[in-house]
Amino acid sequence: MKMTENGVFSRDKVLTIDTMNPTVKNVEYAVRGPIVQRAMQIEKELREGVKKPFTEVIKANIGDAHAMGQQPITFFRQVLALCSYPELLNENMFPEDAKNRARRILQACGGGSVGAYSASQGIDCVRQDVARYIERRDGGVPCDPDNVYLTTGASDGIVTMLKLLVCGEGASRTGVMISIPQYPLYSAALAELGAVQINYYLNEEKCWSMDLSELESSLAEARKHCNPKALCIINPGNPTGQVQSRQCIEDVIRFAAKERLFLMADEVYQDNVYAEGCQFHSFKKVLFELGPEYSDNVELASFHSTSKCYMGECGFRGGYMEVINMDAEVQAQLSKLVSVRLCPPVPGQALMDLVVNSPQPGEPSHITFMKERTATLSLLAEKAKLTEQILNTVPGITCNPVQGAMYSFPNISLPEKSIKEAKALGQAPDMFYCMKLLEETGICLVPGSGFGQKDGTYHFRMTILPPTDKLKILLAKVKEFHQKFTQQYS
Amino acid sequence: MKMTENGVFSRDKVLTIDTMNPTVKNVEYAVRGPIVQRAMQIEKELREGVKKPFTEVIKANIGDAHAMGQQPITFFRQVLALCSYPELLNENMFPEDAKNRARRILQACGGGSVGAYSASQGIDCVRQDVARYIERRDGGVPCDPDNVYLTTGASDGIVTMLKLLVCGEGASRTGVMISIPQYPLYSAALAELGAVQINYYLNEEKCWSMDLSELESSLAEARKHCNPKALCIINPGNPTGQVQSRQCIEDVIRFAAKERLFLMADEVYQDNVYAEGCQFHSFKKVLFELGPEYSDNVELASFHSTSKCYMGECGFRGGYMEVINMDAEVQAQLSKLVSVRLCPPVPGQALMDLVVNSPQPGEPSHITFMKERTATLSLLAEKAKLTEQILNTVPGITCNPVQGAMYSFPNISLPEKSIKEAKALGQAPDMFYCMKLLEETGICLVPGSGFGQKDGTYHFRMTILPPTDKLKILLAKVKEFHQKFTQQYS
Ligand SMILES: Cc1ncc(COP(=O)(O)O)c(C=O)c1O
Ligand SMILES: Cc1ncc(COP(=O)(O)O)c(C=O)c1O
Repeated sequence: MKMTENGVFSRDKVLTIDTMNPTVKNVEYAVRGPIVQRAMQIEKELREGVKKPFTEVIKANIGDAHAMGQQPITFFRQVLALCSYPELLNENMFPEDAKNRARRILQACGGGSVGAYSASQGIDCVRQDVARYIERRDGGVPCDPDNVYLTTGASDGIVTMLKLLVCGEGASRTGVMISIPQYPLYSAALAELGAVQINYYLNEEKCWSMDLSELESSLAEARKHCNPKALCIINPGNPTGQVQSRQCIEDVIRFAAKERLFLMADEVYQDNVYAEGCQFHSFKKVLFELGPEYSDNVELASFHSTSKCYMGECGFRGGYMEVINMDAEVQAQLSKLVSVRLCPPVPGQALMDLVVNSPQPGEPSHITFMKERTATLSLLAEKAKLTEQILNTVPGITCNPVQGAMYSFPNISLPEKSIKEAKALGQAPDMFYCMKLLEETGICLVPGSGFGQKDGTYHFRMTILPPTDKLKILLAKVKEFHQKFTQQYS
Repeated sequence: MKMTENGVFSRDKVLTIDTMNPTVKNVEYAVRGPIVQRAMQIEKELREGVKKPFTEVIKANIGDAHAMGQQPITFFRQVLALCSYPELLNENMFPEDAKNRARRILQACGGGSVGAYSASQGIDCVRQDVARYIERRDGGVPCDPDNVYLTTGASDGIVTMLKLLVCGEGASRTGVMISIPQYPLYSAALAELGAVQINYYLNEEKCWSMDLSELESSLAEARKHCNPKALCIINPGNPTGQVQSRQCIEDVIRFAAKERLFLMADEVYQDNVYAEGCQFHSFKKVLFELGPEYSDNVELASFHSTSKCYMGECGFRGGYMEVINMDAEVQAQLSKLVSVRLCPPVPGQALMDLVVNSPQPGEPSHITFMKERTATLSLLAEKAKLTEQILNTVPGITCNPVQGAMYSFPNISLPEKSIKEAKALGQAPDMFYCMKLLEETGICLVPGSGFGQKDGTYHFRMTILPPTDKLKILLAKVKEFHQKFTQQYS
């Protein structure tokens, strides 16, 4: 108890930083960390007329396509409008295929309304459509809709799967292998669940591929102090933009089989493949191509989302996960667990349905749909190329090709003096760099330290999403800044 | 390793019921439990032509208004359609106020699209509208939008708050007080988090009110083996349908202050008050009326949702939580924690905005909006009355008035013989009862044991949501069944 200014006794709080859940304190999430907070402040200052050496903040910190001007797919939004306000089915402003899709979705909803809770696992017919999509994608490998769970974005599926896997204390705590650099959802979820994060490093020299020897040594090391149970892969990669080869995926599956690891394949960027000679191979397809010794045994959960690819519909929080070879009792537990949150957002489920069941040749919306889809993906491919090319012209910046996903993760060499100054401020050197970049140019990137990187190396992550003209400005400014920064601290 | 039929070696699974997270195994969720599974099976059997003593399943197991035929509010759905497909802003089929709301929401979205991620805490202008709504509702008690967090349904907010609160092992494990009967999200979340569930019983004799002496004794008992930190209240109540009096809320707040408990007020049914003389009092309002000794000190989180009240928009997963007197450092941790999941569904946020900022007198949609809102709430009030009256005519069923929310939780006396038979089958006696009811009549209710009840008492929960004609059939069938059941086992 203490007396406050106005003479009232103030109790100590029940919930304080010392009494709160310590695992929550351990969570870090760089993509929306201090840089982004500061960027928002700067935007506010600009609006209030504060003078800066720039007139706008250009954000390349988050894979948020629509926020960067990407247009939604017309067909998707037409169907969503029809589902929201079915009166529109009586108007003749919408193509028949959009109306048919809306009718089909509405029929599958309780009371014909997207406002009803759905089954916790997701709407039946949507799960069936997802299953058929997976079968087409994987050249006919069968998919059982009962193994498909619709989710609140891929984030939800990933966290739910980890929640099932993680337990134990001390030396028997569950360990989960994640790539470094990683998408920080993984480290955050593991911290929250109190699991051991087992890092395996992607090979920057070989275009961020996965090294079997690295997997082996990291696992061997981890086995000394925890119980490794799962291996997470992001392909195409965030933050590193690589697309793993078929060979690599095969190696990983054999490794997981041999070492008895549950595989988690984050494939939210499955349509985002740009580089010549690169192709998306789903873990499931490769698993089945390896024959029954693998396809009957290796446990796999794979994740997809409406947020990425050509649709970029992040706000709807749609997604699915497919589980393969999951123990039946565990799967019953999974079904129970997801029922506690009632259901994923129904508009997001509807959108996921449209993604896996898009307009077909001969349907009225097909041509427009294909045009829009192709335009978006070609533009991304162009910007991927542009980003790589320009960054590689900067002395002190080296950048792998952006083969897929939406990100470049260039290596930046930082002068010793800047590293010292950063450390004196208690900042990671690339945080210091990115913060200065933001203050001087208005460009908002995320420091590599937010994703993890080899000790003594520095990076930043930038998305390739800004419109081409802004992306060019951004790249030019980064170039200029890097040169100035290098000079200033040499 | 074992050999399977087709000669392939089958590994033991990595993830089994024995190796999985044991806290997940402890989770129970009755609202979607075995009764509901069986109901779905029966529906399928009916579709397949299997003969039953009934032709349809009538579900009164879940508070899912649209699924039961309640119509959405036209204005809300118009704005949602406009937000989904902004091309519609160019049509003159929508009222101006709907267009204006849509424009305002779109402007607040990244790139003017509901497909962009929002700020993790929720869209700024929506949080502002929520704050103004709370101020109006609570007679001017101030609300800071920075204390408002938009959520993925109320479920998400409740689980997030519990996650912050819960920690510790053994005798220092966090304890959380919940009412019995309870909404099983609470027990499920506490099981998953490994917290201690502290039961306090509502007083069935006094219309499910809260007893101070019960709170005191349950807390005293809990203090012997855990660290009680929070007290959860659901008002109006689920599953019990009561509306707490102002006096009761005041008592609870004084109790929480004295005993240093964090208050969690689940107020998702705040518009669902039907009984004469009953009124909704928000915990926040009462807290502030008790003066600064309380309003400057007692920590409170309150929850609201788009799923209930007159809107019943469950599928959109919209909601908000307001935190009051939360420690600043903890609140920063909360903001960080919610950022990991990126953001709540944006259509759900838009819907929450419409709920707190509905058409005003003079606006073109006001009259229709009020008509629809009033019609829905009056119908619910009628059905609340009807349910109570008919159930109370059944010998062996006693039922408190349904003062609010959407549920009745009648007490059923079960013959000894039926209790014995249930126990022999390893079933809770009211589960046995409800299962028989389902098989014989097609009526789907949830047994009281799924919500908790005093030992030796039995109940079921039914929603008042079915359309009046079906509700009447349902009540008549329950009456007939109960009489038959009583005879059969006497
Ligand atoms: C690799 C990866 N996985 C998962 C997610 C989560 O996406 P969402 O929850 O929006 O589907 C993201 C988002 O950027 C991502 O990059
Ligand atoms: C008391 C109570 N709280 C919370 C919820 C969760 O609702 P939602 O997550 O749909 O907002 C419900 C749903 O029935 C409820 O009855």
